[in-house]
Amino acid sequence: MQISINQLQELVEKILDSRGFSKPQRDAITQNLITAQVSECHSHGVWRLLELIKNLDKGMLNPTAIPQVTHNKGAVIRVDCQMTAAQYGHQIGLPLLIERAKEFGIALLAVNHCIHFSALWVELEALAKHNLVGLAMTTSHAWVAPHGGTMPLLGTNPFAFAWPRTNPDRPYIFDFATSATARGEIQLHARNQTQLPNDVAIDANGKPTNDPNEALKGAMLAFGGHKGTAISTMIELMAGPLINDLTSQESQQAAKDGAALPYGGEIIIAIDPEIILGTDRQSATQRAEDYLNQFSQADVRLPSERRFDARDRNRQRGTIDLDDTLIDNLKTLIRN
Amino acid sequence: MQISINQLQELVEKILDSRGFSKPQRDAITQNLITAQVSECHSHGVWRLLELIKNLDKGMLNPTAIPQVTHNKGAVIRVDCQMTAAQYGHQIGLPLLIERAKEFGIALLAVNHCIHFSALWVELEALAKHNLVGLAMTTSHAWVAPHGGTMPLLGTNPFAFAWPRTNPDRPYIFDFATSATARGEIQLHARNQTQLPNDVAIDANGKPTNDPNEALKGAMLAFGGHKGTAISTMIELMAGPLINDLTSQESQQAAKDGAALPYGGEIIIAIDPEIILGTDRQSATQRAEDYLNQFSQADVRLPSERRFDARDRNRQRGTIDLDDTLIDNLKTLIRN
Repeated sequence: MQISINQLQELVEKILDSRGFSKPQRDAITQNLITAQVSECHSHGVWRLLELIKNLDKGMLNPTAIPQVTHNKGAVIRVDCQMTAAQYGHQIGLPLLIERAKEFGIALLAVNHCIHFSALWVELEALAKHNLVGLAMTTSHAWVAPHGGTMPLLGTNPFAFAWPRTNPDRPYIFDFATSATARGEIQLHARNQTQLPNDVAIDANGKPTNDPNEALKGAMLAFGGHKGTAISTMIELMAGPLINDLTSQESQQAAKDGAALPYGGEIIIAIDPEIILGTDRQSATQRAEDYLNQFSQADVRLPSERRFDARDRNRQRGTIDLDDTLIDNLKTLIRN
Repeated sequence: MQISINQLQELVEKILDSRGFSKPQRDAITQNLITAQVSECHSHGVWRLLELIKNLDKGMLNPTAIPQVTHNKGAVIRVDCQMTAAQYGHQIGLPLLIERAKEFGIALLAVNHCIHFSALWVELEALAKHNLVGLAMTTSHAWVAPHGGTMPLLGTNPFAFAWPRTNPDRPYIFDFATSATARGEIQLHARNQTQLPNDVAIDANGKPTNDPNEALKGAMLAFGGHKGTAISTMIELMAGPLINDLTSQESQQAAKDGAALPYGGEIIIAIDPEIILGTDRQSATQRAEDYLNQFSQADVRLPSERRFDARDRNRQRGTIDLDDTLIDNLKTLIRN
């Protein structure tokens, strides 16, 4: 069915209110989910509320805690989410990160002890709107085997980057899992009884498999072989021990049964081109524009362009398409 | 033949002295090449001198200029190499980068207008020895087509990361091209008249090819499809316009015929775990050790381990194996 963006927002707020979330956490979560849904980033849209409430019911999401700034010195900020949603931590940490990046040229935000269920592009778009370059990484649960191995030592570990462009609504921005495919894709193949593509998973014996059910008993593979594995391992270290938070393996061990959303950390680095470039900023920015425009001229789609198009379309008409069953399922989350 | 490390070092110094290099630039280049050669990182070892001298002869390497610190404020340092070797810029920039990272927690070094012919792990190992986490990126020449396109808009754009470990000689460190294979590999296949593996190159018409000669007329591909392409594009922006230096395309256009070594920039980010972690540093570091040790226990080789083994072996015996023809070729570079 078609639902107005406003109605969907009200539904999300109603669910979170009925579950005892504080208003600021409710707003942070709602804004994130609606932003993703309006952009037709379905994997991180409102259906995530189903998982989020499961985490809440299992005691792995604190609806009323307030994130605390635990470190704020030099170019480093740390925010302890106290098991609230990562977005709530961003609301407190991002303004400080922006301030420090503009002061020192580069700064780092560690978001600790958060429940993570969202796309990273949302917070990086916020940085790009402030004309900052951004990098973000987070761990998840250890479902991915390193290249050359069979033991799942890595999470799906997303990696995201944003570069502000002349059109503030269309930065150069990517955000992808470092696994060869999304875990949700494998689950979808299992449900539809269809075969997996090659090179995305191994079975419990470490043999390559196209059978989604065998894959779920085995492990996923990293994208790009040993190179993707190396990047994913970097993410484990950067969003894990570097900020004194959990690796994907530790997060999985900490998860209570049925609480599927990772509990752990996120690291965000912001860089201010203005400080680096000074009076050369305009010409350098223009060269970047000219460079990126060549991709479009050569009919190569830049990351996120499909998403931008969807957002423009949905914002203009004020409504979005949503599966009837999903809306019904969401409504059952309201506790009277 | 076997040659002692000392003899090889003397040969390199003799070549550079005979070509009019200043002593500090000579030492910076020599140290880098010997370090790579001793580690059996052949692709970045002493054979690179052949290309380096070609660049010199074409007027695209300044043997006597002195890199200048052009920006040194907050957490950002910029060093203008004035068309000297990147290593010379590191000698001046890295101590400042280390100082700033330890002061602010994170810092950024931009090396501009350098001739780049070396592996990035050398400078990152230097950071790791100071217990810093490091990231490095540089552009090259535009030989790589983005996923979904045929026009070579990307360089082979290496990406490197280092994480200090308990054994200071064996950090977690990777350094790889974001192209599916090295350009030198394709040239080697052409010379040996052997076929390329799948998914590494396209011909001049944009069709996948296994023929190395067709590949050299066409374009290389990025590793990991659209994800590797996105990372390579990030590197173009970070090591190019962000630090007001050339993209791979611009560097290629600026290259005089026969001068194959890229002229452009490198970006290095250093992070001090001690500032982020404070009193938790030791326990967090130990968790990282335990985590990485699981790879080894599962018989998964970590990046650079082969290189570390070679270095230990060669240092112990004080000699390295080097091709006779290569030594003869190097000797012809000495100008009497």
